[in-house]
Amino acid sequence: MVKETRRVLLIGLAIGSLGIISFLNVGQISRKIQFDTSISKDATAAVLQQFLAYDEKPFTKVTFEKGTYHFYPDKGLESFCHISNHDDVLISTAFPITNKKNITIDGQGSTFIFHGRMVPFLIEHSEYISLQNLSIDWAQTFHSEAEVVAIDEANHTFDIQISDEYPYEIRNGQVYFIKEYYEHTIGQSILYDPMRNAIAFDTESYTPVTSYTKLPVAQRATPIIHKYKADHNAPPLKQLNREWQLEMTEVAPGRVRIANHKKKLPPVGMILAAKGEQSQNRIAPAIRITHTVGFSANQVNVHHAGGMGLIAENSENLTLDNFNVIPSNGRMVSATADATHFVGCRGQVTLKNCTLNNQLDDGLNVHGTYQEVMDVLGDRQVGIRIGHYQQLGFEIGRPGDQLGLLKLDESFFPYAQLTLENIEVLNGRYQILTFKEKLPEDLESGDLLENLDAYPELLVENCDIGSNRARGLLISTPKKSVVRNNKFHTEMEAILLPVESSHWYESGSASSLLITGNTFQDCTHSGQNRGVIRLVTDDDNENVAFKNITVTHNTFNQFDNLILEINNTEKFEFSENEINNSGTFPQLFPENPVVKVRSSSQLVFENNIYRGRATTLFESDEEGAGLTF
Amino acid sequence: MVKETRRVLLIGLAIGSLGIISFLNVGQISRKIQFDTSISKDATAAVLQQFLAYDEKPFTKVTFEKGTYHFYPDKGLESFCHISNHDDVLISTAFPITNKKNITIDGQGSTFIFHGRMVPFLIEHSEYISLQNLSIDWAQTFHSEAEVVAIDEANHTFDIQISDEYPYEIRNGQVYFIKEYYEHTIGQSILYDPMRNAIAFDTESYTPVTSYTKLPVAQRATPIIHKYKADHNAPPLKQLNREWQLEMTEVAPGRVRIANHKKKLPPVGMILAAKGEQSQNRIAPAIRITHTVGFSANQVNVHHAGGMGLIAENSENLTLDNFNVIPSNGRMVSATADATHFVGCRGQVTLKNCTLNNQLDDGLNVHGTYQEVMDVLGDRQVGIRIGHYQQLGFEIGRPGDQLGLLKLDESFFPYAQLTLENIEVLNGRYQILTFKEKLPEDLESGDLLENLDAYPELLVENCDIGSNRARGLLISTPKKSVVRNNKFHTEMEAILLPVESSHWYESGSASSLLITGNTFQDCTHSGQNRGVIRLVTDDDNENVAFKNITVTHNTFNQFDNLILEINNTEKFEFSENEINNSGTFPQLFPENPVVKVRSSSQLVFENNIYRGRATTLFESDEEGAGLTF
Repeated sequence: MVKETRRVLLIGLAIGSLGIISFLNVGQISRKIQFDTSISKDATAAVLQQFLAYDEKPFTKVTFEKGTYHFYPDKGLESFCHISNHDDVLISTAFPITNKKNITIDGQGSTFIFHGRMVPFLIEHSEYISLQNLSIDWAQTFHSEAEVVAIDEANHTFDIQISDEYPYEIRNGQVYFIKEYYEHTIGQSILYDPMRNAIAFDTESYTPVTSYTKLPVAQRATPIIHKYKADHNAPPLKQLNREWQLEMTEVAPGRVRIANHKKKLPPVGMILAAKGEQSQNRIAPAIRITHTVGFSANQVNVHHAGGMGLIAENSENLTLDNFNVIPSNGRMVSATADATHFVGCRGQVTLKNCTLNNQLDDGLNVHGTYQEVMDVLGDRQVGIRIGHYQQLGFEIGRPGDQLGLLKLDESFFPYAQLTLENIEVLNGRYQILTFKEKLPEDLESGDLLENLDAYPELLVENCDIGSNRARGLLISTPKKSVVRNNKFHTEMEAILLPVESSHWYESGSASSLLITGNTFQDCTHSGQNRGVIRLVTDDDNENVAFKNITVTHNTFNQFDNLILEINNTEKFEFSENEINNSGTFPQLFPENPVVKVRSSSQLVFENNIYRGRATTLFESDEEGAGLTF
Repeated sequence: MVKETRRVLLIGLAIGSLGIISFLNVGQISRKIQFDTSISKDATAAVLQQFLAYDEKPFTKVTFEKGTYHFYPDKGLESFCHISNHDDVLISTAFPITNKKNITIDGQGSTFIFHGRMVPFLIEHSEYISLQNLSIDWAQTFHSEAEVVAIDEANHTFDIQISDEYPYEIRNGQVYFIKEYYEHTIGQSILYDPMRNAIAFDTESYTPVTSYTKLPVAQRATPIIHKYKADHNAPPLKQLNREWQLEMTEVAPGRVRIANHKKKLPPVGMILAAKGEQSQNRIAPAIRITHTVGFSANQVNVHHAGGMGLIAENSENLTLDNFNVIPSNGRMVSATADATHFVGCRGQVTLKNCTLNNQLDDGLNVHGTYQEVMDVLGDRQVGIRIGHYQQLGFEIGRPGDQLGLLKLDESFFPYAQLTLENIEVLNGRYQILTFKEKLPEDLESGDLLENLDAYPELLVENCDIGSNRARGLLISTPKKSVVRNNKFHTEMEAILLPVESSHWYESGSASSLLITGNTFQDCTHSGQNRGVIRLVTDDDNENVAFKNITVTHNTFNQFDNLILEINNTEKFEFSENEINNSGTFPQLFPENPVVKVRSSSQLVFENNIYRGRATTLFESDEEGAGLTF
C-alpha cells in the first residue's frame, strides 16, 4: 500500500524567504524552490515532494543552500526493508531514490540532522547517483555513552556518569536509554579511551559488560521440536535460557552503579559506549544502496548512523572519495556498525581518501553470501534457506549469473556451476531458485550456493581506518584487490581475510590481493590473540582457501609480537616490510611469534626488516619452520 | 521484493496416494492433485503453488479431502501487513487470496492446523470469496492457560500450575511462555471458570494480574520534547515510567508462585488465561479481509487465533453463517481478540447461526474510523494523522466517498462534507487526502474526518455470543441494524453503542437499531458497574449521539439490577421486555436502578414485565424520573 503513494504528487508548501533547495531539471533549467526558514526545522515534506513528483518533473541535480536541515520520520515515506547485515525494519526516508537515474545531490556543505528510525538516503534500482558536500548526523544517537567515574574492588561494582545528552531510566535493575523514537539497554558495549579518542587498550578484559547469564537448568522451558531448521541466533529463540545478569542502581542523579559484572572492572576515566541488543540495534544505516549501477559519494561525512555508514547490496561500480565516518559533538562513537559494507556487489568498489573512524564495527567488509540448499524441487530448481537472520530476503544474483555449488568440507571452491534463471522470494528465509541447466547429480540438501559473478574488484587507497571496534578491512572477494597507502589503527585485525559459512554465511575468499604502502599502527590491541593481518577459515580442514596474496612495502608499528596469521593459503608473499616495536602498550602475548602458518604453501618472505621483540619469527605446522625474513 | 514472487509459478510436488485437494478451474473441469500423506504434514508449499499460479491456471473451487492439514510459515508467502486493530506484522500465508474472483474453498470438514505467525486466509482486493466446511486451529496457541492451585493469604501470593501444553521459563522473576515461533509474558490476563466454561464471576476483583508498577519519579528519564504529537499508547513510549511488578518463582515443576499481585487473590480452581503484552499479541488473525466485495463463511470454525477470528476492512457485503469461534482441545480460550470485527465496511454485514464464545475480546465490533486533521496543505488537501497505533496505514475510503468533518465537542454529527478524490499514504501514521471540493473555512487542525459512506447495514440473528472477555456487540453504524433472536452471556455489556474519539478513534453512532427477541443471560458479571445494554460517549457533553433505538420483546435474566444505560440519545423505545432476577450470582451493585438515563429525550417505556430486585426503576438527570415501565 505504501508503494502506491509514489505515483502521486505531493503539493502544498509554505513559501518564505530563506533556505534554498534547487532542483535542476533534465533540460538543465534550474527549478528553484524557496523555503521558509521554518521548513529547515523539518525539511522532510518539502524534499520528499520533489522525489515523489520525479516522474512528472525529473531533475538531475538537487542543491541545498548551505545550512542545517532537520528530517523527521513523521512525514517521511515509509517502507518495510530487508537490509543486509541489518535488522528488518520499517523505515522512513525523505530521499526515496528508487528507479531514478543521473541524480546528484549537493549539500554545499550542509548538515542534515535526522531524527529516529530514518534511512537518510535510500537508493534502490537506480543508476548513477551521486552525493556530495554534505554531512549526515542524528539529533539523538542510537547508542549511548557514559564515563566510568568510580570502581569498588571490594564489592566488584563500578559507577558510570551519564550526561543529559543520554536520558535514561532504570527498570527492574536495568538501565534503559530513552530517545525520541527509540530506546535501548546497555546490550552490546565496549570501552573507549577519551585520551586516545579510540577503543581502550585491552578492552576485552573489561567488556562487553556482562548483560546476560544462563538460566539454571531447572528454570528452562522444555525444548520445542521445530519441524524445520530453526535459527537460534535470531529472536525469539535467542532469548531462551538467559536472563539479565547485571544489577544497576542510581546512586546520584546521572550516576549509576553496576554490580554483577563478570569481567574486570573498567578503568576510571574510560567511556562506556553501549548500543543495546543485537538483533534490535541495526535499524538506520546512513546510506542504503541496492540493485544500483553507479554510485559515488564525494566529501560526505557520516557522523552517526544506527547501523552502517553505507551498506550496498547487489550493486555495481561504487566510488567513495573523501567519504568520512567520524563522530561529531564530542561523541566517541560514529556509526554503530560498519563504516562501509558491500554484499554481492560487482564491477569496481573504490574507497579513497576516506577516514573511517570510531564506528562500532569494521571499516569495510566486502563479501558475497552463501545460501543453503534446503529442497531439491525438480530438475532445475531448488528451495534455498537464508542462513543468517540479517540476510533475510537477500537475492543472490540476477538471471544469467553463474552460481557455484559447494560442499565446504571438501573444498572452498565450487564443485559445479549453474546459470541462474529466476529467483522467487517466498519469504525472508526461503526462496526458490531456477537454473538454466539441470542440477548436478551430486547436489544434496545442505550444499551451499555462492554467486561467482557478484564479487567486485576492490581498491582501498589513502584511507585512515581505525579507532573503531573490530576490524579494519574484511575482504572476501576473489577479484583483483589493492590496499594501498592506508593507515590502520584497529582494535582487532587491521585486515582479515575470512572464509566462513556457519554463522554469518558471508562467502568469498581473497585470491588476488596486494597490500602495499600501508602503515599499521598498534592494531589488534583489544586483548585478542590475533595477527594484524589474518587469513583464516572457520572450517577446520587443510584445503586451500586463499591464493596470491602479496604484502609488500608496509610498515608495522606494533606493541606486540604477532603480525601475520596465514592459514589455508597458496602463494603468499611478504616482502620489503618493516616491523617495529612501537612501545605504545604493554605486550599482551610476549610468547607469540611474528608469523603463524598453518595448511599453507608457496610462502615467500624476503627483504623484511624486523625491529620487534619476538624471540621466534615463525610458528608453523610444517615447512614454515624453515622460513626466514 | 516479496510482491515479485507472485508472478512466478512454483513447481515440484511430491506425488503420492492419500489426501486430495481439488482445484476446479474456470471451465468447470476439476484439476485434481494427489498428495503424499506426508504433504499434509506441511501443506503450505502445495497449496501456495496453486494460488501463485492462479493467473495462468485460474480456478473457482478448491476442495480438500476431509483430513487434518498442517501449515507452517517456513515455506509460506510473506508480506508486511498493517491490519486494523492488530499490530503491524510480517505474516506468512498459504492462502494469498489477492486480486482474485469467485473462489470457494471447501474443507469438506477438514481441520487446518497452523503454526506460528500465519494468517490462515489473507483476502485482499478480491471479489466473491467463500470459505466453507473447515476448521482453523493452531498447534500452539498465542496465549497460555494455568490453573490456580493454591493461595497464601498471609503472604498474599498464589500458585498456578502450568501444564506441558504451555512450556515456560522464568527470567528475572517473570514467566515467559515459549512457543514454536513466539513467546509471551503474562501481560494481559483474565480468569476463566472451568465449571461454567466462561469468564469467572467478578474477575475484575482478581484480574488483570498486576504486571506493572510505575517507576519512582527519581528513576524516570527526563521527558523528551517531541516535535509532533507522540502516541504514548504505542511502543516505545508506552514502555516508559514502568517496571515489572510481580515476582514469580518456580516452587515445583510446572508450579509457579506469584507475589506482589495488587488485586484480590484469585480463587483456587480458576484458570488464568494470559496473552502477553498489548501491542505485541495481535499478530495472527484467522481471516483477514480487506478491499473485498462479497465474502461468505459457511460452517467455518475458528478454534484459535493470535488476534481476531475475522477482521474485515474496507469491504462490502459479508455474510457469516454458522461461523463459530469456539475453543478446542479443552482450552478455555478461542481467539485471543474479538471474534469478528468490521472497520469501514459497507453494504450488508450479516451474522447468523454463529457461536462466538470464549474469545478474549468482543463478539462483534462494527465501526468506522476518525482521522485527525493535522495540516491544511492547500485549498483541497489535508494531511491527516492516524490516531491509534493499531489503525496505522488504514485508508479511510475510496474516491467518491463522502467524508464528514467533525468538531466533536460541538456535535457528534458532521458540520460539513467533502468528496474524497485521492489518498496518498506516506507512512502508517500520516496520509495526504485530496478532495473534489474546496475545504470549508472553519476547518482547522484537530478536526476529525469520518467516512459517511463506509458504514454497513447489520443483521445479527440466531447467534450465541458469550463466555468471552469484554462485550457481545459493539455497534457503531448509523445504518439500519437488527439484533434478533440471539443469546448473550458476556462479562461486560452484551450490547454497547459507543461514540469515542480519544483513544480508539472508532467512529460512528447507532441511528436505527432494533434489538428484539434476544435472551440476555447474566451479562455484565465481570464486576464492572455497567448496564447490559449501554449507550455512551466518551465526550462529556449533552449532544445527541444516538437516535431511533428500539429494544423490544427481549428477555433479561440478570443477577443484578442495572439493565440499561442511556446517554445522549434521541428516541429510545423499550417495550414488551421481560426482566427476571436469575439468582445465578450474588448482586454486586444492589443500590443500582434498572435504567440510568442522561442527556436523552423521547424515551418510551411500555408493556415491560419486571421481576427483579431493584427498588428504583429509573435514575435520570431530568424528566426520566417520571418514566414508568
